[in-house]
Amino acid sequence: MNALAAYLQQSSREVETLLDSLLPSEQTRPAILHQAMRYSLFAGGKRLRPALCFAACEACGGTRDQAVRPAAALEVLHTYTLIHDDLPAMDNDDLRRGKPTCHKIYGEANAILAGDALLTLAFELLAGSDLEPARMVMELAKAAGSTGVIAGQVEDIANEGQALDEDTLRFIHRHKTGDLIRAAVRLGVIASGTDQALEPLTRYAEHVGLAFQIADDVLNATSDSDTLGKAVGSDAQRGKQTFVAFLGLEKARREAERLVHEAVALLGDLPGPTAPLNDLAWHVIRRDR
Amino acid sequence: MNALAAYLQQSSREVETLLDSLLPSEQTRPAILHQAMRYSLFAGGKRLRPALCFAACEACGGTRDQAVRPAAALEVLHTYTLIHDDLPAMDNDDLRRGKPTCHKIYGEANAILAGDALLTLAFELLAGSDLEPARMVMELAKAAGSTGVIAGQVEDIANEGQALDEDTLRFIHRHKTGDLIRAAVRLGVIASGTDQALEPLTRYAEHVGLAFQIADDVLNATSDSDTLGKAVGSDAQRGKQTFVAFLGLEKARREAERLVHEAVALLGDLPGPTAPLNDLAWHVIRRDR
Repeated sequence: MNALAAYLQQSSREVETLLDSLLPSEQTRPAILHQAMRYSLFAGGKRLRPALCFAACEACGGTRDQAVRPAAALEVLHTYTLIHDDLPAMDNDDLRRGKPTCHKIYGEANAILAGDALLTLAFELLAGSDLEPARMVMELAKAAGSTGVIAGQVEDIANEGQALDEDTLRFIHRHKTGDLIRAAVRLGVIASGTDQALEPLTRYAEHVGLAFQIADDVLNATSDSDTLGKAVGSDAQRGKQTFVAFLGLEKARREAERLVHEAVALLGDLPGPTAPLNDLAWHVIRRDR
Repeated sequence: MNALAAYLQQSSREVETLLDSLLPSEQTRPAILHQAMRYSLFAGGKRLRPALCFAACEACGGTRDQAVRPAAALEVLHTYTLIHDDLPAMDNDDLRRGKPTCHKIYGEANAILAGDALLTLAFELLAGSDLEPARMVMELAKAAGSTGVIAGQVEDIANEGQALDEDTLRFIHRHKTGDLIRAAVRLGVIASGTDQALEPLTRYAEHVGLAFQIADDVLNATSDSDTLGKAVGSDAQRGKQTFVAFLGLEKARREAERLVHEAVALLGDLPGPTAPLNDLAWHVIRRDR
């Protein structure tokens, strides 16, 4: 296993251990709700956002312990967005990471409510942090709210199947994907207890976030169904606008690489280890999800 | 106008002024999202939860200013629960307070996302409080989460149209309605900066919360459609179990009165004025919504 794979696995394990201990058990009333929450939360994602949070905290000289609550909150919030995005009223997806989506198993009402409960839990996790809990809640709420992740999702749905300009495409991605990646890195910095690197690491995160989405579009256009865990080319089939549709495959790939180069160039002069942030930036454009 | 009506109006005005200044305008991108949020938020509810928060804060010797952020957060959170409860996948209601529900006007996807954005905003509001922001976030998150309001809604949906025992009925109401009323009073106490009355006022709130739901059932069984703002007797029509179905109309009315008597008996020995808490307790069983 290479260093990055080990880093992702460790981050995943630490987050899952905390979440397993804090989440009500599958027997806790209402059992179906807690089953639905755990089903989606422990569905085996790569835990990219927690890893970014840990890595940013360590790069700023903080410990992994300081970052574990915000890391868990990020994964919980990310999971809620996936559950709601997959709903029949939104993307109407039956599969997620190769498994039936939450509403396919637990029904639409319970999926909506499981998402609501996870969103709520994310803020409960942050409120229980030792360091700057209120500032962390504010950071995540702004990133996830009506001018953040949700703004991206609303515009994405509003423009589905329509021709849209590059400005709108960038708006959608900056918010829908970018804002949470940005928050992951910033929460890691805040958790470290020092703000010195907040500005350069915020820019790092913005580049990585955009590269992530471009790579996502490339992946959707080129992967086979097993790798992707959902139907191949589904974006193109629904007439969804992507960076690939805009730039073409090769230019999209090069743009993602350029952004990662810019991101890692911002990692000089930090008090802690920066190898994980460097590896994660390259990983987002080379991952198979 | 009597004293209580004036109190409710003042609370409503203060909360709406704050929310209007903090919420993105209807022109802010995505415009449809911010229109949907404002449509449901400014739909003219009685603002009972904010009033309870203000009243609890004042009864503990705090000022109205100290309570305005949590009061607003409570109304924002309450509004999200209404939007999601009305969805086709849940209660499938077309009318709310005599007006078309959020999803009837803005579509299902935008209604889900407007609810998500309001839930997120509630925590942003609390995180910006001067006093004990993290504790307030924790309080509201626990009340609203998977063992609070959402637990009540899941059990309500799971049991719709089925015979259920009184224990389940009480579980549903304690969480679906009670937990937020309890949080309203507790946040008011916390906002006042003194915890002395937290225990008796929590019990006050628990009694008032249960009385509220019993009165709601009585109202649904007896009111005309204009007063109610939705179809009359709709609970009975869907086979929804209510306290009226359990106890009969007269016993249900008496139980609500008994609970209010117990609640107001807890209002002795507080440093500030208790008339609003007294009036609000009686109001919940006499309101026409």
